[in-house]
Amino acid sequence: MVVTKRVAKAILERILQGEEPRERLKLLEPRVPTKGEPLPPHPPCATEHTADALERRRAFFRERGLCLDQLAGEGPEIPAEELEGNIEGLVGFARVPVGVVGPLRVNGSEAHGDFYVPMATTEGALVASYQRGAEVISRAGGATTLCITEAVSRAPCFVFGNMREAAEFLAYAIPRYDSLQSAVDETSGHCRLDDVRTVMFGKEVFLVFEYATGDAAGQNMVTIATDAACRRLLEDAPVQPRRWYVEGNLSGDKKATMLSFVYARGRKVISEVTVPRRVVQRFLHVDPEEIARYWKTSILGGVQSGSIGVQGHFANALTAIFMACGQDVACVSEAAIGMNHMEATEEGDLYAFVALPNLIVGTVGGGTHLPTARECLEMMDCHGTGKARKFAEVCCAAALAGEISIAAAMAAGQFTDAHAIYGRKGSAPNHEGDH
Amino acid sequence: MVVTKRVAKAILERILQGEEPRERLKLLEPRVPTKGEPLPPHPPCATEHTADALERRRAFFRERGLCLDQLAGEGPEIPAEELEGNIEGLVGFARVPVGVVGPLRVNGSEAHGDFYVPMATTEGALVASYQRGAEVISRAGGATTLCITEAVSRAPCFVFGNMREAAEFLAYAIPRYDSLQSAVDETSGHCRLDDVRTVMFGKEVFLVFEYATGDAAGQNMVTIATDAACRRLLEDAPVQPRRWYVEGNLSGDKKATMLSFVYARGRKVISEVTVPRRVVQRFLHVDPEEIARYWKTSILGGVQSGSIGVQGHFANALTAIFMACGQDVACVSEAAIGMNHMEATEEGDLYAFVALPNLIVGTVGGGTHLPTARECLEMMDCHGTGKARKFAEVCCAAALAGEISIAAAMAAGQFTDAHAIYGRKGSAPNHEGDH
Amino acid sequence: MVVTKRVAKAILERILQGEEPRERLKLLEPRVPTKGEPLPPHPPCATEHTADALERRRAFFRERGLCLDQLAGEGPEIPAEELEGNIEGLVGFARVPVGVVGPLRVNGSEAHGDFYVPMATTEGALVASYQRGAEVISRAGGATTLCITEAVSRAPCFVFGNMREAAEFLAYAIPRYDSLQSAVDETSGHCRLDDVRTVMFGKEVFLVFEYATGDAAGQNMVTIATDAACRRLLEDAPVQPRRWYVEGNLSGDKKATMLSFVYARGRKVISEVTVPRRVVQRFLHVDPEEIARYWKTSILGGVQSGSIGVQGHFANALTAIFMACGQDVACVSEAAIGMNHMEATEEGDLYAFVALPNLIVGTVGGGTHLPTARECLEMMDCHGTGKARKFAEVCCAAALAGEISIAAAMAAGQFTDAHAIYGRKGSAPNHEGDH
Amino acid sequence: MVVTKRVAKAILERILQGEEPRERLKLLEPRVPTKGEPLPPHPPCATEHTADALERRRAFFRERGLCLDQLAGEGPEIPAEELEGNIEGLVGFARVPVGVVGPLRVNGSEAHGDFYVPMATTEGALVASYQRGAEVISRAGGATTLCITEAVSRAPCFVFGNMREAAEFLAYAIPRYDSLQSAVDETSGHCRLDDVRTVMFGKEVFLVFEYATGDAAGQNMVTIATDAACRRLLEDAPVQPRRWYVEGNLSGDKKATMLSFVYARGRKVISEVTVPRRVVQRFLHVDPEEIARYWKTSILGGVQSGSIGVQGHFANALTAIFMACGQDVACVSEAAIGMNHMEATEEGDLYAFVALPNLIVGTVGGGTHLPTARECLEMMDCHGTGKARKFAEVCCAAALAGEISIAAAMAAGQFTDAHAIYGRKGSAPNHEGDH
Repeated sequence: MVVTKRVAKAILERILQGEEPRERLKLLEPRVPTKGEPLPPHPPCATEHTADALERRRAFFRERGLCLDQLAGEGPEIPAEELEGNIEGLVGFARVPVGVVGPLRVNGSEAHGDFYVPMATTEGALVASYQRGAEVISRAGGATTLCITEAVSRAPCFVFGNMREAAEFLAYAIPRYDSLQSAVDETSGHCRLDDVRTVMFGKEVFLVFEYATGDAAGQNMVTIATDAACRRLLEDAPVQPRRWYVEGNLSGDKKATMLSFVYARGRKVISEVTVPRRVVQRFLHVDPEEIARYWKTSILGGVQSGSIGVQGHFANALTAIFMACGQDVACVSEAAIGMNHMEATEEGDLYAFVALPNLIVGTVGGGTHLPTARECLEMMDCHGTGKARKFAEVCCAAALAGEISIAAAMAAGQFTDAHAIYGRKGSAPNHEGDH
Repeated sequence: MVVTKRVAKAILERILQGEEPRERLKLLEPRVPTKGEPLPPHPPCATEHTADALERRRAFFRERGLCLDQLAGEGPEIPAEELEGNIEGLVGFARVPVGVVGPLRVNGSEAHGDFYVPMATTEGALVASYQRGAEVISRAGGATTLCITEAVSRAPCFVFGNMREAAEFLAYAIPRYDSLQSAVDETSGHCRLDDVRTVMFGKEVFLVFEYATGDAAGQNMVTIATDAACRRLLEDAPVQPRRWYVEGNLSGDKKATMLSFVYARGRKVISEVTVPRRVVQRFLHVDPEEIARYWKTSILGGVQSGSIGVQGHFANALTAIFMACGQDVACVSEAAIGMNHMEATEEGDLYAFVALPNLIVGTVGGGTHLPTARECLEMMDCHGTGKARKFAEVCCAAALAGEISIAAAMAAGQFTDAHAIYGRKGSAPNHEGDH
Repeated sequence: MVVTKRVAKAILERILQGEEPRERLKLLEPRVPTKGEPLPPHPPCATEHTADALERRRAFFRERGLCLDQLAGEGPEIPAEELEGNIEGLVGFARVPVGVVGPLRVNGSEAHGDFYVPMATTEGALVASYQRGAEVISRAGGATTLCITEAVSRAPCFVFGNMREAAEFLAYAIPRYDSLQSAVDETSGHCRLDDVRTVMFGKEVFLVFEYATGDAAGQNMVTIATDAACRRLLEDAPVQPRRWYVEGNLSGDKKATMLSFVYARGRKVISEVTVPRRVVQRFLHVDPEEIARYWKTSILGGVQSGSIGVQGHFANALTAIFMACGQDVACVSEAAIGMNHMEATEEGDLYAFVALPNLIVGTVGGGTHLPTARECLEMMDCHGTGKARKFAEVCCAAALAGEISIAAAMAAGQFTDAHAIYGRKGSAPNHEGDH
Repeated sequence: MVVTKRVAKAILERILQGEEPRERLKLLEPRVPTKGEPLPPHPPCATEHTADALERRRAFFRERGLCLDQLAGEGPEIPAEELEGNIEGLVGFARVPVGVVGPLRVNGSEAHGDFYVPMATTEGALVASYQRGAEVISRAGGATTLCITEAVSRAPCFVFGNMREAAEFLAYAIPRYDSLQSAVDETSGHCRLDDVRTVMFGKEVFLVFEYATGDAAGQNMVTIATDAACRRLLEDAPVQPRRWYVEGNLSGDKKATMLSFVYARGRKVISEVTVPRRVVQRFLHVDPEEIARYWKTSILGGVQSGSIGVQGHFANALTAIFMACGQDVACVSEAAIGMNHMEATEEGDLYAFVALPNLIVGTVGGGTHLPTARECLEMMDCHGTGKARKFAEVCCAAALAGEISIAAAMAAGQFTDAHAIYGRKGSAPNHEGDH
């Protein structure tokens, strides 16, 4: 989550888009519903498990111009031909229930509006819990959200005979890093090589190629690009490695690593909200100070558990959204790390914050073209080109909702009850209480 | 992954089941197909993306008595009522493509046979890669696999006024740990409290309740049980905490932690195989020594990345199987950590090993009753009571297949090609080569 | 820092010594100087760097019956013969300045009194900073301190031909763990084998032998004991390992590891104090709330840095005391991890806490017999048999003093000033301000 | 240990000094003693603990023009006045035995020659173990060694009212980072601000100021410089923080952190050697393959222990040299992390490598002016200006010696024996065997 001054300058320019900082940053300000910016309605009957309630929810979205045919199982099966590039050995389709959380108000530099967020899960209470968080965020005026860094990396490793040879190779290679973009360009038009980081590890040299990959998650793209760049680099090298690998297991692909936590991998997004005391009390049934106390306990527990970063359950938000939206769900292993922070303000309100440094998401490519994924992405206007940062910001705001909800449940002693009610059959209430 | 002598004795007894060690452990021996234990056939046309190929694969499984109607989209939609306890705000179902890997021969204490493993994914090349690993494992006689520990934990935290009060509480509580099972029993008949670990952290006391949860993943169950046990403990306590929480963020629920890696959380399973040199060369197109060299590079890279444990891509196997089989996919965040190990033996063969210390899986409860999940679990005879350890062993053997395949691809320089071929549209070959 | 219920019971018995908890735990209560338990005086002129001031400080201690001849360079050189077992290739002695911090009031189960703590360092401001912390702790009534666990480990590794052989070995070994004490006894009369933890890692088996080593740090002792125990274990084993090592790099010897942080290695000690608001304000020149706010920032920073535990500068206290007291200073690498916690109480006072899970210290053996080390240990009545837990508690209380002092300096914006004043020549004041 | 392309270019230029890479890198080549570059003699009687042997060792160094008077206790006591800036509350001096290891041949870009390395310790066998490692390194032609990065950091934290304010501050600050050197210059002439890294953490902004500090360890210097730079930055800022701290506990000062491991803190140095098979066999009594096998076990153990990096006992080398040489010994907590790597080459020789990313050392300032420290530094020609990188390279080569020696001892089953012989009184042999 640490960026050099060169990178910081580039990020700043991208975010400001040439405007005055104070002017441009107004985008991040809360828009309180009771002060002239009312929230759209909730989907109806969220906790009722009947065919009728389901139909009313579907109607709710159809009325808003959103197609749910595929989610409703009404479209045709996807032709096998269209799954080339997505799977081998196909025998059919797993069907995973999708619920919707929202409206979730987001005040981001890219995601700016009120969102209905589809979440696929089989864990009772999960959607209800995120709904609760979305409720207080939205009533507070929304989650201020910012997609900061964007980078996907591949980390090839070159093995030389000894350190002197490795040094000689680097003396040749380092001045040529800038020339590798042309090799990258031959593999993809969407892949920009932003940096090549060097790890001199004796006779072994690891390079970390960092790319911007547009609106694709990009892991496939950067593999092919890095392979091409390495071959270019080796063409005229004065000393050849004995062996080289396109990935030396340093990039953090598909795993939780401190390196990714520190540097950011994928998109790094942060989100915060200040929820007025009375909203906390009314909807979360607890005082902000109690949530702040729980947060402190949770960070003491988290540090003792040896987690990478400390947070509550980012994995729940990300897995559910990723499954719904055709993302590479295995990336949850790396994406579900980060930090949360909660405190009571001097005014007695609740301040809550999350940082997600490794959001590997895309709005083009991968599984995003599959029928149900497309419907889910379109529900948030996050399908296709130019939408990846927006989608990342929504994911981050949803994670914030979940952190608030679980911390409040723990602080109020409701966590067990919520699971006893929503996580077991035949025990769910028919009313949603306070909405 | 470290167990006390008391726990080691219990595990030993469970595994030996009263038999002589040498006799009982014959279960773990390889069964080489060419020596009288032939493998069942492959599902046909695995890399063909046509309606015809799909139908032939489905027919293959139907002929073997396995129902794929729900996966084929032929069954009715699941009634909303049946999803109570699984989701709120339901609007429909995400459909995720499922491919099958196998046969995968497993020689475990619980999973003992040849398995077809369903994997849900949208990432091209993934199923093909695991198929390659399954191929060499099976031809080598199968993966020796052992489910060792089983534990799911909740970690309540009690906050006292000072350390003296906390000590007084512990002086009361520690001798009463054994009496808490009766409180647990009132919440579930499947939940056995195996240990209560104590963390005295000044005025804050964290207890780590460790349970066996039968064939359920059990996270919901242990929350309710721990809540009851804590209330029981507090009833007569001579000093009351100022606050207490059913979870102090120490249990590692839904996140990668060193604590879970060290202690095991969920089921810890290990799996190994020794693949004959000629099988490696024929199917992986590389020498065992080259794979061993890559492994060494991968561990140097992995350590430098600051991962918890070091492995290649456990997340891919687990996410794909979890999505197919109605597991809590968010648990991939914690399950996808562990260790791999590969080396060339003195005889020139490939030795490969994986340890997965945190397999949170269940074969009852959660999403396992959903129609497509049930079909997928039944494909492996892993649905219902008495199957969780078996399912965990299959997951682990599948992870081993993936580690072998990716390491071989890296070592042989095929990783990029595999993604260029299977990860993009219109580029897949029609033949599966060497199978 | 997590102990099983069996271990918790043993610790509880040791601490209670058969007394009623409430009675016995009175030991931990603060003894406020202004309420009948006055503090002994400070050593004079602590910040004056003159021969005269030095002589007055020495006289101060001599008047209290403490010999400082060796520290003063007045004794004879240590005969080379007496250094056998401590060093090879001896050419002389490094002289490291020793300052004294105190009085430091400690209310521990073993260390109970007012201590003058010798610290060897060449870093200006360090002693002054700890003095400041000691001042507020003592005026608050002292640091409540508890030595909890004690364990030193060795982790041999046995490499078998395959997992089945490893399992067969374990089936033989696990029931025999209890019999290994007799082999240990043949190597030392002070070494008690408390547990043998098992890590089954495929064909490799790591055992973690955990010992109590009396008042010695014990690393040498446990190596010899483990070697003997392993040889005993292998004598009749039905299957022999291909190789075995007395240490598989798993014990955490001489390095910071999560495993040691989680389990405790050496002695785990915790310490807390509640400092009245007016004492904080008068001596630390800041409000408790400001320190609490800084603590929160420091833990957010610490988690982002990826440290093992989060604390300020345990290393400073431990290194300085270890160098003065003939400890194995290299153990700072493992000892200087842990946790701190600070908050403002509801009454507006400062609550501060530290946990040091890996205090590798001894009061017999190692360098403790060297002349200056002995003088330093005797200054705290911590030399010889029966003193190791006491010494560990003093170390922990000193670490607490340092954490309070640095957090206050950061919160008050004095950190830079302190270093500008004490860390540079010719800039120290002649007065100690408020003492 | 990962550097951006900009930093890589700067390092490359510094190392090459304008020469052709291949020409300049000849510095790193082994100089085999039997091929015309003989080694200087060993100090005599290294394992004899008699007054006579001690005197002969001292004479050995005096004959080579090295003064050991202070180490021999023959000089006057250091005047108290000269310790201003080093300690408060002085009462005397701890005397720690110093042994010498060597000759140790180093082929570095800065340290190039044969070194006698002073080590202060009270742990028997330590000096003998390093001597063994030095022996095989030197006979192999020396350790190829390279000081790569140099950076000391401070990480101030600014706390704003909300994320928008923090963003506005950064929009002001980021373009001004380059102007802060002038503020730094006013505090020190030796402090170069190389980068300001930004962590946007919601309403909290952490900046990581990275400096080059010449030949000083520099922690004090960078605190004062950062304080000045922050004040400069805040002077005209359009939005002021509610609070700010000169250190937000993110810099890794005095603690082991992944951030420092990843980025390097202090000086990052790497060192390697290839030891001929017959030298390994003759002096380490084991085959290179056995050492390579032990290394593999040690890395599997190390990863499972959750250490930061994996190595054997860097802490022993660094603590002993730091204590002898007036370094800030508490920095061992951060310096003693890194990586080792050993393997048997295709020719059957032993390849060994270490990377130490966090060597916080100085050859001016701190305790380097103290009499015994100065003698120790001068023994290696490492005292004063222009020597810090050289000193760092010697430290790294010494650490390499220790890693080889301990791995060989473990592989050969000699580890226990070495401690039984050298770690206990009355058991040391009078002969050094094979030297």
